[in-house]
Amino acid sequence: MQKVNLSDKLSGFDEVWSPKIVGELNGQYVKLVKARGEYVWHHHEKEDEMFLVVRGRLSIHLRDRIVDLHEGEFFIVPRGIEHKPVAPETAELLLFEPAATRNTGNVDHAYTVEADKLERI
Amino acid sequence: MQKVNLSDKLSGFDEVWSPKIVGELNGQYVKLVKARGEYVWHHHEKEDEMFLVVRGRLSIHLRDRIVDLHEGEFFIVPRGIEHKPVAPETAELLLFEPAATRNTGNVDHAYTVEADKLERI
Repeated sequence: MQKVNLSDKLSGFDEVWSPKIVGELNGQYVKLVKARGEYVWHHHEKEDEMFLVVRGRLSIHLRDRIVDLHEGEFFIVPRGIEHKPVAPETAELLLFEPAATRNTGNVDHAYTVEADKLERI
Repeated sequence: MQKVNLSDKLSGFDEVWSPKIVGELNGQYVKLVKARGEYVWHHHEKEDEMFLVVRGRLSIHLRDRIVDLHEGEFFIVPRGIEHKPVAPETAELLLFEPAATRNTGNVDHAYTVEADKLERI
């Protein structure tokens, strides 16, 4: 039961595409992640996923369009929908999703971290 | 499936202590609320509740301490824990909580809005 300062937590790591758990409630995780470059196309079979931009810009590529997010904007990718996040420069994101969510969804990739192996910061 | 700009949504209403739904995922709601003055002591029997300060300051009074939150800080009030949010000046907050969450929890109050009556904006 401690408060979390997003900037403090974000200043504590540099890796990109490596989500860190900063909160847990009702079976959901609050995560912080830094993004830079192109992620991998994937989907989550059973989980909706929320991306909130804390700093920078993020483009979420969907198969039929691109959603451009700036600071203070969020987008929810519904379960089953293929998506590929892309950040032209380093972006800082808050994610909200079920604790069971695997970061690369249905895809095995160098970025994959199994849900039970995620770091808590 | 549209992005949400927090500032745009927040500029659309003035009432305090009246949460608006701006997103839904995995049985949870994302809500925005403006806070000013003292709320009512209450708890939620089955729901953990997350308060993220988008603008301003919020003090979450607990029975044994006060958690002071500034912009970019969040706190999760675990289920069953009595709390009373207090905002000295108008604060803008993002809430994450299960869709079933009643805003005044176990207490009936003028601020009470039943979960199925919340406005979506």
